[in-house]
Amino acid sequence: MTSPNSDSPNSDDVGLLAPVSAGSEAESATGDRAFLQAMLDAEAALVRAQAAVGLAPASAARAVTEAARAERFDPRSLALRARAGGNPVIPLVADLAAALPEAAAARVHQGATSQDIMDSAMMLIASRTLAPLLDDLAATADTLAALAAEHRATPMPGRTLTQHAVPTTFGLKAAGWRALVLDAHARIATVRASLPAQLGGAAGTLAAFHAYAEATGQPVQPQPQSEDIGLRLVAAYAAELGLAEPQLPWHVLRTPVADLGAALAFTAGALGKLAADVLVLSRTEIAELAEGTGGGSSAMPHKSNPVRATLIAAAARQVPALAAILLGSMAAEDERPAGAWHAEWQPLRDTLRLTGGAARDAAELVAGLKVNSHLMWSHLTLTDGLLVSERLSTVLAPLLGRDRARTLLVGASRRAAELGIPLDEALRELLDESDELLPDGQSPKDLLPPARLRELTDPTAYLGSAVALTDRALRRTAVHKDDLR
Amino acid sequence: MTSPNSDSPNSDDVGLLAPVSAGSEAESATGDRAFLQAMLDAEAALVRAQAAVGLAPASAARAVTEAARAERFDPRSLALRARAGGNPVIPLVADLAAALPEAAAARVHQGATSQDIMDSAMMLIASRTLAPLLDDLAATADTLAALAAEHRATPMPGRTLTQHAVPTTFGLKAAGWRALVLDAHARIATVRASLPAQLGGAAGTLAAFHAYAEATGQPVQPQPQSEDIGLRLVAAYAAELGLAEPQLPWHVLRTPVADLGAALAFTAGALGKLAADVLVLSRTEIAELAEGTGGGSSAMPHKSNPVRATLIAAAARQVPALAAILLGSMAAEDERPAGAWHAEWQPLRDTLRLTGGAARDAAELVAGLKVNSHLMWSHLTLTDGLLVSERLSTVLAPLLGRDRARTLLVGASRRAAELGIPLDEALRELLDESDELLPDGQSPKDLLPPARLRELTDPTAYLGSAVALTDRALRRTAVHKDDLR
Amino acid sequence: MTSPNSDSPNSDDVGLLAPVSAGSEAESATGDRAFLQAMLDAEAALVRAQAAVGLAPASAARAVTEAARAERFDPRSLALRARAGGNPVIPLVADLAAALPEAAAARVHQGATSQDIMDSAMMLIASRTLAPLLDDLAATADTLAALAAEHRATPMPGRTLTQHAVPTTFGLKAAGWRALVLDAHARIATVRASLPAQLGGAAGTLAAFHAYAEATGQPVQPQPQSEDIGLRLVAAYAAELGLAEPQLPWHVLRTPVADLGAALAFTAGALGKLAADVLVLSRTEIAELAEGTGGGSSAMPHKSNPVRATLIAAAARQVPALAAILLGSMAAEDERPAGAWHAEWQPLRDTLRLTGGAARDAAELVAGLKVNSHLMWSHLTLTDGLLVSERLSTVLAPLLGRDRARTLLVGASRRAAELGIPLDEALRELLDESDELLPDGQSPKDLLPPARLRELTDPTAYLGSAVALTDRALRRTAVHKDDLR
Amino acid sequence: MTSPNSDSPNSDDVGLLAPVSAGSEAESATGDRAFLQAMLDAEAALVRAQAAVGLAPASAARAVTEAARAERFDPRSLALRARAGGNPVIPLVADLAAALPEAAAARVHQGATSQDIMDSAMMLIASRTLAPLLDDLAATADTLAALAAEHRATPMPGRTLTQHAVPTTFGLKAAGWRALVLDAHARIATVRASLPAQLGGAAGTLAAFHAYAEATGQPVQPQPQSEDIGLRLVAAYAAELGLAEPQLPWHVLRTPVADLGAALAFTAGALGKLAADVLVLSRTEIAELAEGTGGGSSAMPHKSNPVRATLIAAAARQVPALAAILLGSMAAEDERPAGAWHAEWQPLRDTLRLTGGAARDAAELVAGLKVNSHLMWSHLTLTDGLLVSERLSTVLAPLLGRDRARTLLVGASRRAAELGIPLDEALRELLDESDELLPDGQSPKDLLPPARLRELTDPTAYLGSAVALTDRALRRTAVHKDDLR
Repeated sequence: MTSPNSDSPNSDDVGLLAPVSAGSEAESATGDRAFLQAMLDAEAALVRAQAAVGLAPASAARAVTEAARAERFDPRSLALRARAGGNPVIPLVADLAAALPEAAAARVHQGATSQDIMDSAMMLIASRTLAPLLDDLAATADTLAALAAEHRATPMPGRTLTQHAVPTTFGLKAAGWRALVLDAHARIATVRASLPAQLGGAAGTLAAFHAYAEATGQPVQPQPQSEDIGLRLVAAYAAELGLAEPQLPWHVLRTPVADLGAALAFTAGALGKLAADVLVLSRTEIAELAEGTGGGSSAMPHKSNPVRATLIAAAARQVPALAAILLGSMAAEDERPAGAWHAEWQPLRDTLRLTGGAARDAAELVAGLKVNSHLMWSHLTLTDGLLVSERLSTVLAPLLGRDRARTLLVGASRRAAELGIPLDEALRELLDESDELLPDGQSPKDLLPPARLRELTDPTAYLGSAVALTDRALRRTAVHKDDLR
Repeated sequence: MTSPNSDSPNSDDVGLLAPVSAGSEAESATGDRAFLQAMLDAEAALVRAQAAVGLAPASAARAVTEAARAERFDPRSLALRARAGGNPVIPLVADLAAALPEAAAARVHQGATSQDIMDSAMMLIASRTLAPLLDDLAATADTLAALAAEHRATPMPGRTLTQHAVPTTFGLKAAGWRALVLDAHARIATVRASLPAQLGGAAGTLAAFHAYAEATGQPVQPQPQSEDIGLRLVAAYAAELGLAEPQLPWHVLRTPVADLGAALAFTAGALGKLAADVLVLSRTEIAELAEGTGGGSSAMPHKSNPVRATLIAAAARQVPALAAILLGSMAAEDERPAGAWHAEWQPLRDTLRLTGGAARDAAELVAGLKVNSHLMWSHLTLTDGLLVSERLSTVLAPLLGRDRARTLLVGASRRAAELGIPLDEALRELLDESDELLPDGQSPKDLLPPARLRELTDPTAYLGSAVALTDRALRRTAVHKDDLR
Repeated sequence: MTSPNSDSPNSDDVGLLAPVSAGSEAESATGDRAFLQAMLDAEAALVRAQAAVGLAPASAARAVTEAARAERFDPRSLALRARAGGNPVIPLVADLAAALPEAAAARVHQGATSQDIMDSAMMLIASRTLAPLLDDLAATADTLAALAAEHRATPMPGRTLTQHAVPTTFGLKAAGWRALVLDAHARIATVRASLPAQLGGAAGTLAAFHAYAEATGQPVQPQPQSEDIGLRLVAAYAAELGLAEPQLPWHVLRTPVADLGAALAFTAGALGKLAADVLVLSRTEIAELAEGTGGGSSAMPHKSNPVRATLIAAAARQVPALAAILLGSMAAEDERPAGAWHAEWQPLRDTLRLTGGAARDAAELVAGLKVNSHLMWSHLTLTDGLLVSERLSTVLAPLLGRDRARTLLVGASRRAAELGIPLDEALRELLDESDELLPDGQSPKDLLPPARLRELTDPTAYLGSAVALTDRALRRTAVHKDDLR
Repeated sequence: MTSPNSDSPNSDDVGLLAPVSAGSEAESATGDRAFLQAMLDAEAALVRAQAAVGLAPASAARAVTEAARAERFDPRSLALRARAGGNPVIPLVADLAAALPEAAAARVHQGATSQDIMDSAMMLIASRTLAPLLDDLAATADTLAALAAEHRATPMPGRTLTQHAVPTTFGLKAAGWRALVLDAHARIATVRASLPAQLGGAAGTLAAFHAYAEATGQPVQPQPQSEDIGLRLVAAYAAELGLAEPQLPWHVLRTPVADLGAALAFTAGALGKLAADVLVLSRTEIAELAEGTGGGSSAMPHKSNPVRATLIAAAARQVPALAAILLGSMAAEDERPAGAWHAEWQPLRDTLRLTGGAARDAAELVAGLKVNSHLMWSHLTLTDGLLVSERLSTVLAPLLGRDRARTLLVGASRRAAELGIPLDEALRELLDESDELLPDGQSPKDLLPPARLRELTDPTAYLGSAVALTDRALRRTAVHKDDLR
């Protein structure tokens, strides 16, 4: 079966440019040999299904099932011969038939079109890739739940448009990451449960199966729908593959592929949010987080880079564009299109592989994440009271009047920065220096004794609903992955 | 409120480059004034919600609600002043406060961040745009159901990779279009029902609302979670807006935006499939379909173009790329990001507008679609028997042997083409001319009398499961749109 | 001309969601009224060109030119009526003819197709938008040249994968930004100079102009090519428009649109690099850079956000996807396509507007950029010698042997961090504490006296070629914008 | 060097899902082993360049050059170990050093960063892939020139928005395809000539090379720029690689990658236009073109599909989105970014491979293209005169008056369709049947004798400037590929 020229090692890709997925289950589940096996699984399931509905002898089904083992075929030869007809099923059918006795050979691919096999194989690949991906998402969510619970009240600067804003907690941040990961898990699980087998024959009417029934003397049309040989065969075929039964052949109704693209891009984005935060918070000047085992550098062996976050971020930059190709391919003309379908194959595989790899890396990243809560704490005071100014102005305004409160705050903030003293001290000094009385005759400094000033300027006393939000979010039940398979 | 220089008519877009959506509900629901109104609705709902939980007087809520009418504000002035802070909420708050008595003015935007208002407004806009979009999808699906039922057995050439393959029916094609439209409807309805209000304050902790509670003497932390002032306010705010209550502030947890992007790109793709088929089948040489009222041409007034299909196809080319921007924006750093959020605004609006317009156009297109079933019929014989050759070879092989069957078919097909006679006649002539007997001594022409030949070469007798599939697909319940609002 | 129902203010966009471009020349050059004027300019130029080659009377050319003023037409009415034929030229021709005496009216749009006018108008719009964009890029490059020169030797931490690596200079960084801006300027200038007029008639053969010539008694075919009435007319038309003369009608040869998309995406990316760096270096913890006039916040009035960098970053996230739509539209079937062309209009306009706005903002950003060189300086020592460890290990290895050098460095770095002393002191102490001699009998501390240690650990003495690279890059001649118009 | 577990055949991709490029030079030039060799070439060139400027002994350069052969290394092991640091250079340096004597090993990768090697390797890969791609584009253009010349006056229906419009010629269509291919060739050739080597060291300052110079006793800074050791090394390195000398390290100045993305997306789009037309014109109902050797079908062996056009069309759907990833990666923060760079690797490789494969397929497609000019001819009359109605109304209006001309045309067109007679006969009959005289007393039928009617209704006499345009376009000099290498 192997052409002597089919061995062209230069054309092999073995993951050299794909560290995000190298060595992952997503990688091995999507390689060319895995795809070859999935196509063979589809061909074998088709003969078994035909046997089940009386269109093929059981002996043929057994023989084809036995022969349909990827290691007996040469994927490189198939790749080269795929050019003639535009897809690898045509040469694969020839090779599979050649490996069988004549009686069984005649049953291979009987009544099917290439797209029936390619699409079914792609759904098998998707199903097999999404299983470990779901595991990795579930593990990531579990780890994040623990982090969020542990740090439910760990204060840190909230940052907006790159600037410190008001305090938040690391627990709330981790709970947010987890919420996105659970959202991704739910979307992937839903799509995975709906992945359908594909069977339609040349133009989606299943007509050839009627012809085979006719040739073997079975009654054909008209029949009650429940007895329609085509519909019965599709059901049997889906059952053999462990995939959902489609209501219609979906050669040009690309809901499964579009849903996969959307769910995977969602997942890559969800993980990309986590990675974006880790990259910011790992910066040398911030260092509130660090990857447990950072990556080295070829130039500076002592350097510890946030490698997993980097690889996840890189995946998150690629997957949306790949998903756009898949969504764009929905606009496919005719009963089977000239290009829109062919354009799906590699983007779908890459989308599975990149997202699956990113999920593996995310699980590792969060498992090893180092949280430097003392740095989070110490950064709260970097801005000389900016983080609590919202609270101060809100609380002081009704006491002192809006203008007087503002003047006091601006002055105290400047003094704190200049003298390097805490904001409450600066406030106290300013209040002490002033003799001004309020319209009602009270003295501001009587209203604001040192302990109250200390409490009002304490960033950790200005966390709002952070803890309550975290606790509520953690009550969202983690998806139980076993329920979803 | 209007700056004298804010009137710059050259910067207005009024739909000149957007025929797909011009005049549609999707257009008017997404224009700048509609967005301005939605922002005002969000600001007013916030004060009402604060009144409901005791953070603002009811009189302020009434006053702000009364003042929050878009026609009283100048969107162009807001657009110009938005540059300073990067979004239009900052100047809007100033203008809204300026339009109110001081007591009410002080309550405007109290405790919120710009993104609370922008995101809530965007969800309102989405909700308002998706309502007519769902109507249009439902109407399209209904029309397609009628077309599929009417043409459940109307034969036409099935086309694959641009070539005639085997017969199919127009009913099956229409049922497939409908299946995609129903899939789109389901995805949009699910997303629409989950669109959440946004409220988090400066960094998503709702802390300012606690400060307001403190300033007004309310007890603050620690509290039982059900009493947390922030969580209570969010619930009240969502109720005022008629949007879902979010579990967490989602400033950087962009599930709603990503879901919108994915569902809208799905919908554009679903309609794009319909349009792609209409464009092929409207071609001058094919003409099996025609838009009821085709579009004119500036060069050739007599020409009738498939304009709606063209505009839908154009939308389907744009929306996936726009959705990719939205999905890519999930990777947003910090508590509120510098760029990822801002990059969503226009793509989200355009995605709503293009898809909403395309749905309107699709409803019109299918309502007026002309089906030239006589041309479908006559095209079945264009290929001199190619469309039934799969059946013939399947049925004849066991009768005549595989090689003899093939020789007969090739010869008959050539003769039919050369002499311009029907394929069954050519078969009959060839059988008549031959004296060959089968190995069992039977004469082929006895096995294949003229009536049987006629039946075997009749494309309309080779429809496989087309009718059964159509009937089953039509039993999928059309979504009842009222259930989903 | 205005239909009474054409006034639908809800459908107006006035820039509310587009702070990146609001108020810019790019915005006013691309608005619907600007586009309307460009279409009118194209129609008028066509009549003038026909007059020039004898296909229309000069009086008609004058009348049409006089009437072709945007303020006399209603863009909203045109937008609504564009739906019938799929583009706004058809109703515009009707309105323009209605505004003219009959003799002139008959000459309007004579022989042209809608796409001739739309494409020519789009090229006019592009040309008019790119002029200020080139100015802004040139101004940005000039400012960056001054910054690079001023800071050619200002040291700062070089950062890779978010971590401090080795020192660099701010001058080298600014020179890099400038190099990208000059690259963008060159690409935009080249595209702008090549923008062609579009004229082909119904299917790109210019045949109608031959018919007009025939009808007016001019000799037609066969002619020497230089006398071909179609080719002569195209040349005259391009001259009237001030656009390049196309070699072929390019209705489906979309080089100009693809080139615009690519050059604008390049430009957005170039500015996006500048913005990405400003966002990092503006972070509260880093603060080496600040926008001169940062943006406020609706929640925290005292906060200063890097608003321009944010808006530029947001544009850079959108433009590549929009350019992908344009590049994808090259695959356009037939003589004029059903969808691929229509899909270009808004993405091309948005690409011009977003990039033009970003260029305006970049010019402002760099003009006001605050460089806190003292913070750059002080951050050099944040990592206790990491930034110079590459140099130390390289220089010490041949002196001490690779292993001994490494041990010394690791120990000194740890001591410096623990005691909070400079790295050279820590090295000196370690050398002083050791009695070890080198194999050649020398004492390490003799080889490395304090002054040499100080020099070796001085980050500012480890700038490599930074200054030389900066100086060389600054010798790249700034583009003289006047040469390129 | 090979870890025993590195052999994981399931992760190999051998082109099974990539028929567009399987077996092409683009495929073998971009495979993982080709990339491994390119990285080794870059490492070896670096040592040779260091030898040339005195930073390494010539013996080390010879030893490294000798050892740098891909077949001696295990790409799968490198892929797996790349995960630790995020790229394959780090393990490659280790393996390369391990394969060398210690003196040479010490010189491997001296002073470089991983990105120096990866980027240089990517540019080598690009250069090597673009060479055959340029050949294929040149061959395609040559074939198209011959087709255009042969068919310069072969009439066919011009089609717009899927409908017949006015006649055009196949020569003009082929000349248009060629113009796009030449545009692509010019863009690719320009980019290829500018591909730069990458060398900057850890943060782009080339500082480590100064340290090596210092360690070996060479004078370092300050130096005249021409003597700067870093700049001299970069020049030597680029010369060794046969790549352009960069003005600045471009770790985060991604002009070369963005330019590659844009030029390749342009090329894919140019070929996509050709494919789109072939797909339309190959349709069963049209059949004006056919691929010389169409592809088979697994369901219908007799069917001949336009396979190459399909595969090219599929590539054209993917490349713009991949290019958008590359253009989006320009916005890369810091001196080397955490993600933006890593996101380029696979999209750049895929973009090269898909476009290179498409160019190979395009060359084959046009070489074998069958032009059925008799069908083009016969389709001219499909619309009963529509194709010439523009001319007729233009020429008849001044003779008969606009209204009378229109009435005549409409009636004649209807009669021609009803009776199945040529349009000129129908016109003659109508003129004969009428006694009406023109205002000047002449009889219409005298003005329009049968020969004139025949000429006016002859589609082949209404080709406008088609031939002149074709001839002019063919005078555009085909690029001489040898000049551009």
